[in-house]
Amino acid sequence: MAGTILIVDDVATNRIVLKVKLGAACYQPLMAADGAGCLRLAREARPDLILLDVALPDIPGVEVLQRLRSDPLTRDIPVVMVAGTADPALRRAALLAGADDYFVKPVDDALLMARLRNLRRTHEALAELGQRGDTLQALGLAEDQAGFARPGTIALVCDRPEEALRWRRDMAPHLSDQLLTLHREEALAQTSGPDCPDIFVIDGDLGGRGGGLRLMSELRSRSATRHAGIVLLHPDARADDLAMAYDMGANEAMETGHPAAELALRLRALLRRKHAADRLRATVQDGLRLAVIDPLTGLYNRRYALPRLATIADRAQMLGTCFAVMVIDLDRFKAVNDCFGHAGGDSVLAEVAHRLAENLRASDLVARIGGEEFLVALPDTGLPEAQQIAERLCRMVQEAPIALPDGRSLSVTVSIGLAVAAGSKVATQDVAHMVDRADRALLDAKAQGRNQVMLDASAA
Amino acid sequence: MAGTILIVDDVATNRIVLKVKLGAACYQPLMAADGAGCLRLAREARPDLILLDVALPDIPGVEVLQRLRSDPLTRDIPVVMVAGTADPALRRAALLAGADDYFVKPVDDALLMARLRNLRRTHEALAELGQRGDTLQALGLAEDQAGFARPGTIALVCDRPEEALRWRRDMAPHLSDQLLTLHREEALAQTSGPDCPDIFVIDGDLGGRGGGLRLMSELRSRSATRHAGIVLLHPDARADDLAMAYDMGANEAMETGHPAAELALRLRALLRRKHAADRLRATVQDGLRLAVIDPLTGLYNRRYALPRLATIADRAQMLGTCFAVMVIDLDRFKAVNDCFGHAGGDSVLAEVAHRLAENLRASDLVARIGGEEFLVALPDTGLPEAQQIAERLCRMVQEAPIALPDGRSLSVTVSIGLAVAAGSKVATQDVAHMVDRADRALLDAKAQGRNQVMLDASAA
Repeated sequence: MAGTILIVDDVATNRIVLKVKLGAACYQPLMAADGAGCLRLAREARPDLILLDVALPDIPGVEVLQRLRSDPLTRDIPVVMVAGTADPALRRAALLAGADDYFVKPVDDALLMARLRNLRRTHEALAELGQRGDTLQALGLAEDQAGFARPGTIALVCDRPEEALRWRRDMAPHLSDQLLTLHREEALAQTSGPDCPDIFVIDGDLGGRGGGLRLMSELRSRSATRHAGIVLLHPDARADDLAMAYDMGANEAMETGHPAAELALRLRALLRRKHAADRLRATVQDGLRLAVIDPLTGLYNRRYALPRLATIADRAQMLGTCFAVMVIDLDRFKAVNDCFGHAGGDSVLAEVAHRLAENLRASDLVARIGGEEFLVALPDTGLPEAQQIAERLCRMVQEAPIALPDGRSLSVTVSIGLAVAAGSKVATQDVAHMVDRADRALLDAKAQGRNQVMLDASAA
Repeated sequence: MAGTILIVDDVATNRIVLKVKLGAACYQPLMAADGAGCLRLAREARPDLILLDVALPDIPGVEVLQRLRSDPLTRDIPVVMVAGTADPALRRAALLAGADDYFVKPVDDALLMARLRNLRRTHEALAELGQRGDTLQALGLAEDQAGFARPGTIALVCDRPEEALRWRRDMAPHLSDQLLTLHREEALAQTSGPDCPDIFVIDGDLGGRGGGLRLMSELRSRSATRHAGIVLLHPDARADDLAMAYDMGANEAMETGHPAAELALRLRALLRRKHAADRLRATVQDGLRLAVIDPLTGLYNRRYALPRLATIADRAQMLGTCFAVMVIDLDRFKAVNDCFGHAGGDSVLAEVAHRLAENLRASDLVARIGGEEFLVALPDTGLPEAQQIAERLCRMVQEAPIALPDGRSLSVTVSIGLAVAAGSKVATQDVAHMVDRADRALLDAKAQGRNQVMLDASAA
């Protein structure tokens, strides 16, 4: 499906000309002749982008934009304003209201098309994240603090120190962000740690014609700066330079001469979008973590544990090492729940989980695989060592009483079934079989009086 | 942190020259003089990319590459082969062994640097997905069927039909994929549905010089083709055309004259990588879904339900409509567990969940928020209707006995507490308060003898 673009202009010929151009680029054009029509179509058709004339017969273009931005149904649609004259005040008002860009007629076709592609690409990437984020938004993990952008770090990258300082001096009054002036090499070296800039403002002709584009490509190829905002400033901006910058992924490309106040507005908007995207990415990470964590104990859940155990087994087979599996069950846990209530039972589970995790290595796997049942897997571990570890876990649970929320305390014990496999034998037995063996040993431990470790006989 | 690049060449001056060039681009160069050194350093230092000479004194370069590709520690590192001569057989062998590209000396510096940036950018994007995927890989959701690429759809995009047909005729013997020949407009129209091509092979001069790059940008700006593989074929490839194509995000850029067999190899490799990335993205989606689903019943979990309820309330407030909340509890569930065991209890929970979900609209929210407790929210629903729905749910649970896994069957009932809020009042009460009201009504229902609906008094 081609993207739909809503053209809003009161002059019919303007609409027709744009319609033809957009049609040639395989966009599906929609048209409105005034602000009311724009607002209605934007809500109904949800276009992928809006080209909005600033001078409309019914409502001023900037006000139309403000209304689009305050309606949840339309607020995320990219809007490019088109104006008959280069009135700086109007331009600032449009940017302040949330315009994604502002073109003055006559518009260079190739540049406009490149900018549309560029905005749609950025928008699609966010939408893809947001789609995943949908669930997460509902999870309340992604609070979108729209409108407010916390201060960020903006790097000004330029060959000539005096020019960079001038940029900084011009922009400082308009921004509360940290402004760094950097050379090209410093910009590339600056690509990690908490000081990594959120935005790079780059001289287009850095180290020679087209050098800014190359630096942008370098920055985009490094993990720390892949998602940085990038603004290219061209001293003598030709339309095809700017178009190229957009097609190569610049967030903004403009002439050096722009008023600092306007550049600052664009930087603030870019920073806000960048922070929102960062948050969305972090939210996706959090969401994935939630899928594999048991909320009560903070341990991995069963869903994670079994496949993870399979990779431990694979590794042991590949490297020819041993590994051990324990199934651990709380003794007489039903009685705990009956006497101390669910809250008491939950405290016991959480504390036992904590003691298990504390007494194992980071490379070991600990998971809660049932109500009161835990699974432990020890990579690179043979029989004598595994048995020692299991005995220690038993002791650690029994040793100190567990404090309950109601002020009382309680001593509990666990029974442990242990199975060990030598690397060479792992191939012939699947992981479920290992867990079965440990399970049988656990039943023995229970039968022998609980609070003890039993080894699966077939491993001896 | 700058990327590290391992240079493998037995001629010291070659290494030094490359080292200087890479240093200037702010890469951190590592060096090895032979295959053994390469394999050792690749494992130890895990460079971000390897430049590997095909002619090494100890092990042939292609064999070194094969060993890198068969070692889990090194198999994902991008490798660019560098050769003294353009031997087509050697070139094919290198691509077959998994080379990411193959340069013949003398190497054009700007082109090489652009290709390195390009490969690292692709690699970083995958690594970012893979990082999230780590957990998921362990979840067993992302089986990576390396080596095998299922057939895909490859579009050949060219202005001249006879040229496109010639491409197809040349490539068909080497590929089992579906090959389409398309014009530019068809390529842009072809961007949705199951037939959407996996790879676009594009004439660089499509519709005039640079037209291929523009089409690539268009394709990258549309959701269906954002992640397509893109190969640009240039009739008279100049190094800076190819470099530009790489910087703009082409997966491959080369001269039209390349042997079809080699192009086919590159297309197969690209298809394999594309399918793997698609799988990884799908896995991230699945993982996120798992974070919000209760595995036993398939309903949403508590973590999802409460924030979701808040958005239902927000919407009601915005639109001035009503909404209703029910808390539903299985009656005497403990007795079910005691008499029929956990397996019996689980069957009952799953079946009750199923009956609830079946009897509600898709826009309603049903979630399991506790052991035997469910939450239902009905958007746009006022009191009389909500009460009818609640009564119906009660009946649906009671009506038919539930079959248990052991062959027995069992009748159960639920109690339901109901609270309704009018749009105008929603603003003054938070969502937790609504759930509390429904909870209190539920207690009334239990006290009045169970198997019934009670309405929260304050809503009357």
